[in-house]
Amino acid sequence: MICVLTGGTGGAKFVDGLRQVIPPEEITLIVNTGDDLLWWGLYVSPDIDSITYVLSGLLSRERGWGVKGDTFLCLQAMGQLGEPTWFHTGDRDLAVHLLRSRLLAEGKTLSEATSTICEKLGVKARILPMSDSRVETRVDTPSGELSFEEYFVQRWYQDPVNSVRFAGASDAEPAPGVIQAIESADAVLIAPSNPITSIGPILSVPGIREALRGARGKVAAVSPIVGNAPVAGPAGILMAAQGLPCSIAGVAKAYEDFLDLLICDTRDARAADALRGNGLRVQCTQTILRSAEDKAALARTVLSFAKSGELADKSVSDESAARAAEHL
Amino acid sequence: MICVLTGGTGGAKFVDGLRQVIPPEEITLIVNTGDDLLWWGLYVSPDIDSITYVLSGLLSRERGWGVKGDTFLCLQAMGQLGEPTWFHTGDRDLAVHLLRSRLLAEGKTLSEATSTICEKLGVKARILPMSDSRVETRVDTPSGELSFEEYFVQRWYQDPVNSVRFAGASDAEPAPGVIQAIESADAVLIAPSNPITSIGPILSVPGIREALRGARGKVAAVSPIVGNAPVAGPAGILMAAQGLPCSIAGVAKAYEDFLDLLICDTRDARAADALRGNGLRVQCTQTILRSAEDKAALARTVLSFAKSGELADKSVSDESAARAAEHL
Repeated sequence: MICVLTGGTGGAKFVDGLRQVIPPEEITLIVNTGDDLLWWGLYVSPDIDSITYVLSGLLSRERGWGVKGDTFLCLQAMGQLGEPTWFHTGDRDLAVHLLRSRLLAEGKTLSEATSTICEKLGVKARILPMSDSRVETRVDTPSGELSFEEYFVQRWYQDPVNSVRFAGASDAEPAPGVIQAIESADAVLIAPSNPITSIGPILSVPGIREALRGARGKVAAVSPIVGNAPVAGPAGILMAAQGLPCSIAGVAKAYEDFLDLLICDTRDARAADALRGNGLRVQCTQTILRSAEDKAALARTVLSFAKSGELADKSVSDESAARAAEHL
Repeated sequence: MICVLTGGTGGAKFVDGLRQVIPPEEITLIVNTGDDLLWWGLYVSPDIDSITYVLSGLLSRERGWGVKGDTFLCLQAMGQLGEPTWFHTGDRDLAVHLLRSRLLAEGKTLSEATSTICEKLGVKARILPMSDSRVETRVDTPSGELSFEEYFVQRWYQDPVNSVRFAGASDAEPAPGVIQAIESADAVLIAPSNPITSIGPILSVPGIREALRGARGKVAAVSPIVGNAPVAGPAGILMAAQGLPCSIAGVAKAYEDFLDLLICDTRDARAADALRGNGLRVQCTQTILRSAEDKAALARTVLSFAKSGELADKSVSDESAARAAEHL
């Protein structure tokens, strides 16, 4: 069994690779719900949706979110009614929000609603929200405190960021199965997601960091930072706001209390050398995911790194890493 | 000011004519809400929607309900999620249900939600739900008691009907403005709607029948029955279940305590003769509405009948009625 902590589009891409290389029944995903929002009165869980769509084959790979081939007529009609339209929910996508909202209104937990939706869509991997309690990522900016989706989608992450907090986290509990999935997995993988606002909310739920520290399998993270910039999105700005350098060293620092292995891009080979030691293994490989093959290759490499106590691929990967570094 | 009691597709067609011949600001519509249903967790008010769409120019005249040119991708996706799909909500149509549901969840009344939606869609006529309380039309059949939409849309009104009741009516109050609109109107028009399940729920709200009896203006109904059959839908079956003949006499009986004028089709000229007297005026005209012109002509005729104490058009209309009757 493999356990994956994930959120955001980087996480969705990584999971898209994993599904190609291991049977879905062997994957448990613990998904960020800090971005969840009430939208048009519906409960929307962007990261759970993306992972659900990836695993059901419904994801629009073009956009990286939502349902492929979707249309936006309801959105257009909402605009005509004077309602906000900055969060793009497609017509097909709405079905999942409607069903989840109804299940929650009937008293089901987010875990139960997620499980029902997965079953209906034929998703065989196990998708767990990090918590059934509401934990909200709040981004403090000079314009005031924003929800993550307001900061990220509505305002295109243009605001300077003072700090990030996870409202409700101290009272939250991990969703059923989360702790056990982490503790008992053969390997725990942290997707190349934003460490602050995709993985950070998961780590803010009491008990999850402790479970990672006590995990039976190795804990391996794929860096979403290459060189001194994130592959996509505002991870750099948010890491800086939280006092972390925007580099693989910053990623290692964010996870320092539980990380066994950091997987970074071949272009970070020199930075990787500087990081090694203190019990942290650092491996380099190709982490930029352009094609289905790239995704499968990364998943395969990460699994082999994480499962082997030995650094079997070290010589090969470090050699190619050194080659790549010369070209930077 | 004209006050119109309406529901169903017959009502929507009649209102489509009225809007062509009088300024919308002069129309108050009191609309059946007995068909309202929770659908996918959203509050749907089919008759209020139809009237809103007619008056905003959004109605699909082809279907007689919903938004013209609408698509049904969310419906399709709901089907794939195993949710019911027998009630056809289009993607654009969903926007109104979403907005109304959110407003109700925020504590607004149905009247307030309706008024907000009308304002957003530029509807200048005043649309009032019959009541802000929940009054549910329940159709008792050998298969059990059904909601109106279950009986009508899901089961294609194929069940024999034992009786109809309006659950919640005795505790309901007319929505704000309803009584005053009826009492003060220059004329009260009852659309050619199903007397049992479109107008019946309105009349079941305590105080509305009394207001109709005390109305300052004439109360005129357009018969939805021509000969011994309804123009469309299950009115005949439902009238029989409530002990009324399926004829203009049955319509007159349903409204006998407040009706001043019954407008029926020219093909009912002989039946009209038999009905006249006891203070009830009966006028004949063309009531089958195929074109925009038909609708405008009926609206114009009904208004002139209802506003004139005198039977100004009697000779003309009875003459043409007699002609038409010969061809039956």
